[in-house]
Amino acid sequence: MTDSELAESRTPREPSSGRRGTNLPRMGDYNSLVVLDRIRRSRAGISRVEIAAATGLSVQTISNLVARLLEEGMIGEGARAGVGRGKPRTLLHARADAAHAIGLHVDPLTITFVLLDLTGAVVHRVLERTPERLEDAIALMAERVVELSVRVPAATLRGLGVAAPGPIDAVEGRVVHPPLLSDWGDVPLRSRLATLTGLPTILDKDVTAAMAAELWQRHHDLGGTTLFSYLGYGVGFAFAREGELLPGSSRNAGESGHLIVDPDGPECFCGRRGCLGVSSSLEHLISRGVALGVLEPFDGEPEPWQEDVAMSRLAEKAEAGDSAALEILRTAGRQIAHGIVLVADLLDADRVVFGGLNWERLAPYITAAVTAEFAASGTMRELHEVAVEGSELGPWVGAVGAASLVLDEAFTPKPSALVAQLG
Amino acid sequence: MTDSELAESRTPREPSSGRRGTNLPRMGDYNSLVVLDRIRRSRAGISRVEIAAATGLSVQTISNLVARLLEEGMIGEGARAGVGRGKPRTLLHARADAAHAIGLHVDPLTITFVLLDLTGAVVHRVLERTPERLEDAIALMAERVVELSVRVPAATLRGLGVAAPGPIDAVEGRVVHPPLLSDWGDVPLRSRLATLTGLPTILDKDVTAAMAAELWQRHHDLGGTTLFSYLGYGVGFAFAREGELLPGSSRNAGESGHLIVDPDGPECFCGRRGCLGVSSSLEHLISRGVALGVLEPFDGEPEPWQEDVAMSRLAEKAEAGDSAALEILRTAGRQIAHGIVLVADLLDADRVVFGGLNWERLAPYITAAVTAEFAASGTMRELHEVAVEGSELGPWVGAVGAASLVLDEAFTPKPSALVAQLG
Repeated sequence: MTDSELAESRTPREPSSGRRGTNLPRMGDYNSLVVLDRIRRSRAGISRVEIAAATGLSVQTISNLVARLLEEGMIGEGARAGVGRGKPRTLLHARADAAHAIGLHVDPLTITFVLLDLTGAVVHRVLERTPERLEDAIALMAERVVELSVRVPAATLRGLGVAAPGPIDAVEGRVVHPPLLSDWGDVPLRSRLATLTGLPTILDKDVTAAMAAELWQRHHDLGGTTLFSYLGYGVGFAFAREGELLPGSSRNAGESGHLIVDPDGPECFCGRRGCLGVSSSLEHLISRGVALGVLEPFDGEPEPWQEDVAMSRLAEKAEAGDSAALEILRTAGRQIAHGIVLVADLLDADRVVFGGLNWERLAPYITAAVTAEFAASGTMRELHEVAVEGSELGPWVGAVGAASLVLDEAFTPKPSALVAQLG
Repeated sequence: MTDSELAESRTPREPSSGRRGTNLPRMGDYNSLVVLDRIRRSRAGISRVEIAAATGLSVQTISNLVARLLEEGMIGEGARAGVGRGKPRTLLHARADAAHAIGLHVDPLTITFVLLDLTGAVVHRVLERTPERLEDAIALMAERVVELSVRVPAATLRGLGVAAPGPIDAVEGRVVHPPLLSDWGDVPLRSRLATLTGLPTILDKDVTAAMAAELWQRHHDLGGTTLFSYLGYGVGFAFAREGELLPGSSRNAGESGHLIVDPDGPECFCGRRGCLGVSSSLEHLISRGVALGVLEPFDGEPEPWQEDVAMSRLAEKAEAGDSAALEILRTAGRQIAHGIVLVADLLDADRVVFGGLNWERLAPYITAAVTAEFAASGTMRELHEVAVEGSELGPWVGAVGAASLVLDEAFTPKPSALVAQLG
């Protein structure tokens, strides 16, 4: 495969014009993925009868699909579990080493890499500081990906997922002047990495990847409407409905930098005050810390790692009870919470999931403020609650998500795929 | 059917937990709807061969499904169209009178009623001023609906759709303290109207209904992500993706009253300034008109019809070049445009469609401002354009949409229905 063919093979589908029909082969493929999905999500193992009950398919259909998956080596048969006086049931489990994907997540501070197996478990992980020069960064990414790739049989490796700060050009696989990596300009990251690693490569926004991680990793489906709120150098959003991503027209859904969350907040480059982007930015929080004497002033423009250290220091001081530090983080928590409640109610979401590099440090201040703001939002709360949860993937959520996008494309049953465009 | 059974039968589905499989009967039903949908959307008629090409189904499958639809009386055979030297093709068309639905839309000023046929054409329409007392309003609704219902054979009438200002309780079919009908309190409108009319009844938000009207009426699918912006007594939003509504967890998606669009704008009851709800409200525009001497002051609290007349007067004066009136509507246009661009970019929408009772009067001011704001929004516009369109349904979009929800539920092929929960 040439470089451009590799890139081409993962170009997002064009929106369809008019519904298409479905047919038997497509139905079989879909049902096979439904069965694999049930088996994968049931870590303790699941029997054919249980799969039939859970999926609404007949036991005969399940037996045929299971035979095919066993033959393909995607699943294995394990212990027989006796229940009551009936015939003991043979438990099926996903074969973890039947498929792998590599994910990498680049942000201004670090590049994180993971190798995932079919069950979504992290087999290997690597963390690097982001090199200052773009070419150094690309070379480092390719090198680490190739090192990870040789750890598993080539036939099981489904591809590379790359998570980068938005906006992105998903059609061309480019990172397009990301404000967080402003020196990068306009980089065809997907084709560059596909060429250097020889792997089919997907590029997506960091927040979209983080949402994909939650969808792939959880052992119960995320039904209803989910809002993922990613806290890194600022706040970003991603959306999912009934277990499928809602990535928007160009996979850039979630742009929310200019929602006004506090008209008395800090000035934004757009000319307004209190936009969510600037109010939640590391740069703003740290400069407040310096202004109020909580943090030492920097000697010149701080490097990303210096900002990270300063943010940790600010959070530690707040935790120790420093009133100025507390005030800074409580204000930020309220501002971010206001933005989250606006977006959650706009989408009528069931659930907000938080994650990202800055989540743990801000969690105490945001959680309290989001809960209070939801409670105060009146009529909508009479109709339904909104669950508030933290991701369990910590700083790895972006890289795990990037790899999950690869596994998701290959293995998640999607009703929309039943009616996908032909060849 | 008892009242509560009627209501129960249209209760929204619970979110599924885990993907279910699909099967042959469900596939057949889905494909049958795909064929009917193609025929319905092709007003000039369409041949079996053309349907096969458009849907990806075999000609044999199409012939079987067409035979079934002919037998059910949903479609008819028409003229033979000769193309080139081949055998002339028999053109198929939807039988307009094979199915009907009634829609009603209640807002503070008017109640609009339509009777739609299967092709989406309006067979009858009625407009009434909204009675002041709730019980009078419900009695009037039931009376007009029954009058419309006897105009068509009972067997073809699929039900009643009701569009009301949000928020709504979709599970119970209640209108829940709508700010626009504050005297109404908490009304179980769905079951009240189901009982009085004997029709299966759906209740949804006015803006959701308006979006449904666009999805049902258009002869090409609305692919990608669409944002409907409804201008009535304020602004509301609804969302769709690939031709399906995204109504949110409780069918209340689109709540946007407290997005700040102008920090120097009018005071909102929430304590902030320049929220989209208050900035775009008839009440605010009219009070500005009075304050600037464009409109006569009211003698006491104005009735809804007085506000409507005043709004028309304001728009006429602006059109005639009155500088104060122009300034009021241009300011409102900019504020509303800012809110729309925020929401469109948050969702990464392909298209914004406008409609509602106040759309025509505000269109010149909003269209210019939206176009300018999209052009100024930088990187996202390098990635894709956003189309801006007006609904062609004018003040009837809510009622047409309410009826469309009924037809949509019965006749739109939805990939998600392939894997719906079993009975």
